[in-house]
Amino acid sequence: MSVRKALWGEKQEAIEESLKAADEDLFRYIRDFAYEEVLARPGLDLKTRELLAITALIALGSPKELATHLEGAFRAGATEREVRETILQSALFLGFPRALAAMRMLEKVLKAHGAPHPREG
Amino acid sequence: MSVRKALWGEKQEAIEESLKAADEDLFRYIRDFAYEEVLARPGLDLKTRELLAITALIALGSPKELATHLEGAFRAGATEREVRETILQSALFLGFPRALAAMRMLEKVLKAHGAPHPREG
Amino acid sequence: MSVRKALWGEKQEAIEESLKAADEDLFRYIRDFAYEEVLARPGLDLKTRELLAITALIALGSPKELATHLEGAFRAGATEREVRETILQSALFLGFPRALAAMRMLEKVLKAHGAPHPREG
Amino acid sequence: MSVRKALWGEKQEAIEESLKAADEDLFRYIRDFAYEEVLARPGLDLKTRELLAITALIALGSPKELATHLEGAFRAGATEREVRETILQSALFLGFPRALAAMRMLEKVLKAHGAPHPREG
Amino acid sequence: MSVRKALWGEKQEAIEESLKAADEDLFRYIRDFAYEEVLARPGLDLKTRELLAITALIALGSPKELATHLEGAFRAGATEREVRETILQSALFLGFPRALAAMRMLEKVLKAHGAPHPREG
Amino acid sequence: MSVRKALWGEKQEAIEESLKAADEDLFRYIRDFAYEEVLARPGLDLKTRELLAITALIALGSPKELATHLEGAFRAGATEREVRETILQSALFLGFPRALAAMRMLEKVLKAHGAPHPREG
Repeated sequence: MSVRKALWGEKQEAIEESLKAADEDLFRYIRDFAYEEVLARPGLDLKTRELLAITALIALGSPKELATHLEGAFRAGATEREVRETILQSALFLGFPRALAAMRMLEKVLKAHGAPHPREG
Repeated sequence: MSVRKALWGEKQEAIEESLKAADEDLFRYIRDFAYEEVLARPGLDLKTRELLAITALIALGSPKELATHLEGAFRAGATEREVRETILQSALFLGFPRALAAMRMLEKVLKAHGAPHPREG
Repeated sequence: MSVRKALWGEKQEAIEESLKAADEDLFRYIRDFAYEEVLARPGLDLKTRELLAITALIALGSPKELATHLEGAFRAGATEREVRETILQSALFLGFPRALAAMRMLEKVLKAHGAPHPREG
Repeated sequence: MSVRKALWGEKQEAIEESLKAADEDLFRYIRDFAYEEVLARPGLDLKTRELLAITALIALGSPKELATHLEGAFRAGATEREVRETILQSALFLGFPRALAAMRMLEKVLKAHGAPHPREG
Repeated sequence: MSVRKALWGEKQEAIEESLKAADEDLFRYIRDFAYEEVLARPGLDLKTRELLAITALIALGSPKELATHLEGAFRAGATEREVRETILQSALFLGFPRALAAMRMLEKVLKAHGAPHPREG
Repeated sequence: MSVRKALWGEKQEAIEESLKAADEDLFRYIRDFAYEEVLARPGLDLKTRELLAITALIALGSPKELATHLEGAFRAGATEREVRETILQSALFLGFPRALAAMRMLEKVLKAHGAPHPREG
């Protein structure tokens, strides 16, 4: 299974259409280099990779891209607890405002999915 | 075992002296809040926490603090491969210059230790 | 009076509900560590602390959290003039785009309050 | 022709009203120092200056100010291709999330203008 | 007294020579716009302005420029305690690594001056 | 001629050895993706690309990588004047401290080369 399939699930087609609409070359680089080359590397499991991605996006303060990787983390098997710990810890390194904004985005992502994710792994 | 003991190992005393010399209250906050409260939380293992810390410090561009957490990651059981994957992946989110600077810092940390860390986990 | 009461005023309950809804542990850390431990320290008055917070939030580019501390600065006794000077000065260190975005957020905060804050202290 | 006229075109009056409403002194600094002193310097053409501004704003993650300079770049003679290359390249230095957010903002700017900009210079 | 005289004291000439050597136009902008226009504005006292500058420089992670403004804060009448509180508070908004790096720079500045600054204001 | 040859000149071998020593995979990505795929794209000349890179690196505050691209800009045909204008302009968007640090790095790069670059293009 491609990394995109694993992380984007049933949204893969919609996400790819949206990326292509933004820029076809950027889409190709994101697909072929970012996802299927770098994120697909062995040596670190996809769940850990998505928790790292969440940390990087909290640092950047990029809410839309953060939402995509919050969903990706859940698809890669992260529990809600692991995602919350990742965000909580980011407060130490990146400050409380960034961590708080990320928690609010997590809230939105969880609400949009209706069914709660399991609190414990 | 305290989180500091686990992550700082034989350097614990030296690190604590250095933190105290910088500011006693900041030292207390780092010890009691950052390490023994937040990093000590269950829900995420210490190795993963240190890989997240490395990502956050690459984002900040803080070389000295990065070195501390590179060593912490190894003490928490991360392989050199896992640390390299963490840094490589950061290039996607934070750009190549930040990833390259982190790899150069990893080089220094590995050299300072003489004995190589195992390449494979 | 607690620091939260001083800075959040009649919005305290609403803000706390909103923080709790985001994450209960993050709420506790913000309440007990950030507000009632660090911001409550003597050695710097609350008004100055809020002007420093505004500067940090301009640097982060965090509009929602900036709004909270703009209101906090006014509750702590800052004049509109002092807040504008704080934002103006940030242009020197953080660039004009960040300062401009902060001024636009100040505009919104002032409008939401209807009554103008006194221009002079 | 003033730099503002060249970069803001028929929107000059609206932009200036909006800046003045935010803060009169900040408006004066942006007009007299940023635009008519620094951006007006010889030694680098306005088109290149706007591509540099786009890069800086991608780094800051400031979408509203980015939109203004995307339009400014087109008024200064940049082709859509040159703007896309500027954004694509930013992925290398600032990461894919920032580049993607900028491409989405470009999409909005292009749509708001109805008529397509020429793809090739 | 000029703002530069107030903040740079006996180092004014050396700092100005060093700025001129870097770039004469940048020197003029820093002197005439940053210092004698913006930082010279009434509405906020110089001590508060320097504490704000310290916060902005902690956010940027710019150690050399931070050292200049740590000294400037002392010349403008800030106590060591006020400077330490400013740095401590920055941990909440910008994370512990940035605050720690700033405390270490403060240590260097204090040592370079030999005589201790008064701990209490 | 490869982009690396054009931008790194006689230092190509040394830079590549240094990159390989840091991490072989990161080296390959920088060589094959960053340089020979993205920076090699038509649509924007190499000189403009290096001025954009300088702006991005000023934003990141990455001095070592900035030095490499300052030299790259000169090899790609930028005049000292164009490089100085690029740095000066960055003060508007990224603040004076970042611009000043970049000018000091330019000073070092120019001194290391002995012969002055032509001031005018």
